[in-house]
Amino acid sequence: MKVKEIMDKEYIYVSPDQDVVEVSLLMEKTKKFTTPVVDSEKRLIGWITSLEITKGFREGKKKVFDVMRSKEEIVNVHENDPARLAVLETTKHKVISIPVLNDDDVVVGVVRTFDIVETLSRLYEIKVYKIFEAMADELKGVSWDELMEASAIVTRRRTGQRITPQEYEKNIRDATFGEAIWATGGLEKFFVGLIAIGELVIARKVARARQ
Amino acid sequence: MKVKEIMDKEYIYVSPDQDVVEVSLLMEKTKKFTTPVVDSEKRLIGWITSLEITKGFREGKKKVFDVMRSKEEIVNVHENDPARLAVLETTKHKVISIPVLNDDDVVVGVVRTFDIVETLSRLYEIKVYKIFEAMADELKGVSWDELMEASAIVTRRRTGQRITPQEYEKNIRDATFGEAIWATGGLEKFFVGLIAIGELVIARKVARARQ
Repeated sequence: MKVKEIMDKEYIYVSPDQDVVEVSLLMEKTKKFTTPVVDSEKRLIGWITSLEITKGFREGKKKVFDVMRSKEEIVNVHENDPARLAVLETTKHKVISIPVLNDDDVVVGVVRTFDIVETLSRLYEIKVYKIFEAMADELKGVSWDELMEASAIVTRRRTGQRITPQEYEKNIRDATFGEAIWATGGLEKFFVGLIAIGELVIARKVARARQ
Repeated sequence: MKVKEIMDKEYIYVSPDQDVVEVSLLMEKTKKFTTPVVDSEKRLIGWITSLEITKGFREGKKKVFDVMRSKEEIVNVHENDPARLAVLETTKHKVISIPVLNDDDVVVGVVRTFDIVETLSRLYEIKVYKIFEAMADELKGVSWDELMEASAIVTRRRTGQRITPQEYEKNIRDATFGEAIWATGGLEKFFVGLIAIGELVIARKVARARQ
């Protein structure tokens, strides 16, 4: 996935000789905390956050040029960079948005943290029962009911929570992978739970075969 | 995972009778675009973003009370809410931060989008070998070498790719979960591969025990 697939294309932008008051009205109206400052060719030359505006107001500054941070002071990404880079830059610099440039240094979008949050959480929206279905397919000779039974047993062992196989099945039909990860406290824990379930159904299968 | 595990505890807060100029200085100094407004017991009564400050400055407002949004106008979450709720509220309302309350309506933290991005991407950036380590821990009586051997065998069966256990180990040391998902063709396939590996090592363990 590339930066251009997650960036906001409906961003605002301002010019360096614009009035600070005018820019503040635009930012409030569009609820933007940041805006790129561009030249007449829409090339990036600076960046303004609403904190530059409050400082500018207090100090009686009139023009964008007087309050903006220069291009050199801020982070930017290229539209064809991996989306992952925008994510890393966001967390590294603790910024809420990053301008996106093309080969000509022209601003073509802005990546915002809540867009990233939305994209990342969509990745985890797959239903948990899909994973269990794949698991049941993989483990030849283990039925769906046996899998649910083992899952209920493992859940009880690990959390103390008494849950029937039917309740377990209902839970995984409703839950997404993302919810399961948040609920279990991380990917490793989620996966270890799956392995424990797999181990139990296999042990039961082997025991059955021996009888 | 709960909201309190991902919230920022080093947030700023202001009182309704504080001067707007003073608050703007505090927000600029700490680089915060938002701050909760609290009463003398630190209970939430309002919310200010830097856009309320720019508007207040323009309109000559003096006190926080004159510019703040009331508690009713904003989203908040409880410290014991699932972290996922904070994620959903963030993307739903497109906000950059949400105040976190305890049972007494006291502000105990603030969830910020870049903290969420950090948590979500940490999940995604986890090294694949961490999952294998958790798997080796879970499967008692299976050594790391046996796990790598089984992994190499399963990879050969599924992809036709001849790979040694040593090469496999090197691959998972370098790769992240995110990369592995792209490489295997999706979350389900990735998990199915892991389950197949688990099944093979368990089968080998059982066979060994029988001898």
